[in-house]
Amino acid sequence: MSVSKLLRERVRYAPYLSKVKQAKDLIPLFKRGQYLGWSGFTGVGAPKAIPDALADHVEKNGLQGQLAFNLFVGASAGPEESRWAENNMILRRSPHQVGKPISKAINDGRIEFSDKHLSMFPQDLTYGYYTRDRTDGKILDFSVIEATAIKEDGSIVPGPSVGGSPEFVEASDKLIIEVNTATPNFEGLHDIDIIAPPPYRQPLPYTRVDEKCGRTSIPVDPERVIALVETTEKDKVPDNTPSDEMSKAIANHLVEFFRDEVRSGRMPENLHPLQSGIGNVANAIIGGLTDANFRNLSVWTEVLQDSFLDLFENGSLDFATATSVRLTQPGFERLFKNWDFFREKLCLRSQVVSNSPEIIRRLGCIAMNTPVEVDMYAHANSTNVNGSRMLNGLGGSADFLRNAKLSIMHTPSARPTKKDPTGISCIVPMASHVDQTEHDLDVIVTDQGLADVRGMAPRERAREIINKCAHPDYRDMLADYLERSEHYALKHNCYHEPHMLKNAHKFHTNLLEKGSMKVDAWDPVD
Amino acid sequence: MSVSKLLRERVRYAPYLSKVKQAKDLIPLFKRGQYLGWSGFTGVGAPKAIPDALADHVEKNGLQGQLAFNLFVGASAGPEESRWAENNMILRRSPHQVGKPISKAINDGRIEFSDKHLSMFPQDLTYGYYTRDRTDGKILDFSVIEATAIKEDGSIVPGPSVGGSPEFVEASDKLIIEVNTATPNFEGLHDIDIIAPPPYRQPLPYTRVDEKCGRTSIPVDPERVIALVETTEKDKVPDNTPSDEMSKAIANHLVEFFRDEVRSGRMPENLHPLQSGIGNVANAIIGGLTDANFRNLSVWTEVLQDSFLDLFENGSLDFATATSVRLTQPGFERLFKNWDFFREKLCLRSQVVSNSPEIIRRLGCIAMNTPVEVDMYAHANSTNVNGSRMLNGLGGSADFLRNAKLSIMHTPSARPTKKDPTGISCIVPMASHVDQTEHDLDVIVTDQGLADVRGMAPRERAREIINKCAHPDYRDMLADYLERSEHYALKHNCYHEPHMLKNAHKFHTNLLEKGSMKVDAWDPVD
Repeated sequence: MSVSKLLRERVRYAPYLSKVKQAKDLIPLFKRGQYLGWSGFTGVGAPKAIPDALADHVEKNGLQGQLAFNLFVGASAGPEESRWAENNMILRRSPHQVGKPISKAINDGRIEFSDKHLSMFPQDLTYGYYTRDRTDGKILDFSVIEATAIKEDGSIVPGPSVGGSPEFVEASDKLIIEVNTATPNFEGLHDIDIIAPPPYRQPLPYTRVDEKCGRTSIPVDPERVIALVETTEKDKVPDNTPSDEMSKAIANHLVEFFRDEVRSGRMPENLHPLQSGIGNVANAIIGGLTDANFRNLSVWTEVLQDSFLDLFENGSLDFATATSVRLTQPGFERLFKNWDFFREKLCLRSQVVSNSPEIIRRLGCIAMNTPVEVDMYAHANSTNVNGSRMLNGLGGSADFLRNAKLSIMHTPSARPTKKDPTGISCIVPMASHVDQTEHDLDVIVTDQGLADVRGMAPRERAREIINKCAHPDYRDMLADYLERSEHYALKHNCYHEPHMLKNAHKFHTNLLEKGSMKVDAWDPVD
Repeated sequence: MSVSKLLRERVRYAPYLSKVKQAKDLIPLFKRGQYLGWSGFTGVGAPKAIPDALADHVEKNGLQGQLAFNLFVGASAGPEESRWAENNMILRRSPHQVGKPISKAINDGRIEFSDKHLSMFPQDLTYGYYTRDRTDGKILDFSVIEATAIKEDGSIVPGPSVGGSPEFVEASDKLIIEVNTATPNFEGLHDIDIIAPPPYRQPLPYTRVDEKCGRTSIPVDPERVIALVETTEKDKVPDNTPSDEMSKAIANHLVEFFRDEVRSGRMPENLHPLQSGIGNVANAIIGGLTDANFRNLSVWTEVLQDSFLDLFENGSLDFATATSVRLTQPGFERLFKNWDFFREKLCLRSQVVSNSPEIIRRLGCIAMNTPVEVDMYAHANSTNVNGSRMLNGLGGSADFLRNAKLSIMHTPSARPTKKDPTGISCIVPMASHVDQTEHDLDVIVTDQGLADVRGMAPRERAREIINKCAHPDYRDMLADYLERSEHYALKHNCYHEPHMLKNAHKFHTNLLEKGSMKVDAWDPVD
């Protein structure tokens, strides 16, 4: 096949050039039930040409629900994955996903989804935990890995994400590499550790965010590379949700709290390395830090968004490391325009390292994430609405919140339903699903205020959270639940963490039945 | 004061000998509301003379509820702590406790208790998280630390536990050392790391269970030592619960599973380092491994019991490390009779190290713990009966289960109530309290069988757990709950992890109201 000039420039290992194929020519390799690994993390760096060719093939030939696969991606892939979900091309999926067609298919029962700590998923895959039923001893049949360049030894230079690609490459029988020539070459931005399994595993040596001790590319056995495909599609990241009054209020409470921590001597003036999630609250917080004149900040996180570019450019942020830079097109343009500036201040690692409990605890990170809901004793639901309906999955929230020096959850105090502008309270009596336990969270913050529950016993926590964080529409209702629960618990010798189990999920059942969490009356208990 | 010959032999730092006091002479130092740290972990190595002298004083002078303290111990102290609870001498307590008088006081509302990951508690204490309200800048007013010897530099050689003592010593304004002359000198058994806070923290270097890179004693600033007291009381550990048919059945399922893992190549022949909790199931498992001819085993755990001595003596176990050796008197006698043998095979570390996520994940430990209950989606309750009544606390269960290569919970399938010999099912529709999430557990095992849920999606897990683990009295009831929940969830687009929230805790409310979890009928949902 003829090879484009651009592709020839990117591929510095000549033997691969004889393996260049068109995506559609590879379709016959793919059979129902195969186990596939894709590069990609938070929607960037995922393969595009092969997934689209397969989706075209399925649509053209009416193979929906027939040509379907067990699909693993470090976290979420791009819009190609949504196309696969719409065409029922996914049988099984781990460990995280984003996109309405996918969550719809999961909640319809068309995809078997299991979500897992992002730091653990790649290692558990290489242990064979996800493919225990295979009789042929293989883990993955194929991995499709996006590269922005190939080095002289055939190794892969990833693009804007590393994710689980090193482990997918290791665990795959055959590899297909998509070289993306529409995206600039990201060479020099990666630091990739190849981690041995127990009992041979060594300490991760990092004691600062800006240390690099790994490789600049993902090592590959060239024999296993069966094809190389050129992709000319850029990553498509939707625009960021702008900050609103609610998210700014949360950010203000948090900035004030950080100042207090510095004043009290519990935190240095440049804070500790920050982890921050995705979404408008996270953006507002990064914006708040930009305005607050913190200096020499550092970031150890899983994903960087556009807002971090501001923090770099105004001089607040010294260095940031993640497993993905999830930028919008204007964001990527800013990055590449100042490539020499950013290249010195950015590093992308594999998700096993970016989300490593070892490093997060060693560095004393400040973890900040948005939950579905938090309960009055400080358990949080990160995944399942009303205990059952999957949103995106756990992601790295628990990797960070379990191990950070400061574990913070930020959420609006209430959300609207169709019939009630504050129909959902994000502070509930008992979380309908628990992903973060009461033993993990230090601070809960909403637009109403900030609850610092460090060192508090459960009933103290409940009062702090209700008083500081609950929306006024729910404050009395929650206090009433707490008092009635305490009354019951004193009689029954269970005053440690009082609940009325009959009413513990009444906020949720009320929402399901009446469209609002506002409870009229509690069921009697005695 | 005159100093006994025994004490003089143990104390090799002369200036302390001028500070020798009788416990009762120190009573005036103690004032209501002080913050105290005690050595001790799982009932061994805790101070005895000072706590008893204070309890005598309170009892003699009717000071119950008046002379009371904020008390921190690495985990549980000895029976002296129960005496304090009976006399209402504890205002606040973290992070773990054992003893009926203490849990009674917690569940009566007389003690404010907060339980915390044992790996995190000491660091959070030194961060000042438990004493944010103090205006004098102190963390602990006094720590009372048991030693079995004092070295030439004034440093403390602990006894059978290290626990949180290094951090208590660091965080205390004044120190009182109890030198226990009834217990042999444990010198040579400890390896103690002094861990810097972020941003100065370094990697923990251990890559094998038998490496020692720390100190042999706890460093102390002698200026802060205000008194040294001789104790002549031994540790009092109650006899171990013997294995019964139920615990042997669990052990047999587990040994068979380990053999399968070895056969499948997911585990080496000598397994990975074992962590095992306390109790008759844990003892039966260690007994099962003793009989099963595994060789060259190693142990990385938080507490060692008598059963490990058998495993050493029959040649199965090469090396064991923990933060505590909780032996019965006959167990301690066996240990000291073969001191030269055991000294080469045992190491005690601080709990921050024994329970470190960094090491547990690096070594690929096999974690085994007993829950209160597990739900069909593999969330586990380790702490609160019926969501509210505190047993002992989280302990190190989540440190190990989150980070181990194999995370196993073992439990009887059912327990008796007063009116029903199988009135409590340990497999429930929804855990009434969640300490371990569905993202943490790999294997659930009961006397009925073993559910290997690795890589499974929630509904698959539920069938595996119900079919393999539930007691026959509850199997149909649980399957019925699952099917009805699935029926409901398909209608409402929440089929990922189906629940009927109205009935999710009906096992528990039935137990509270009728003395058995056997539910006659579900509340209608649609």
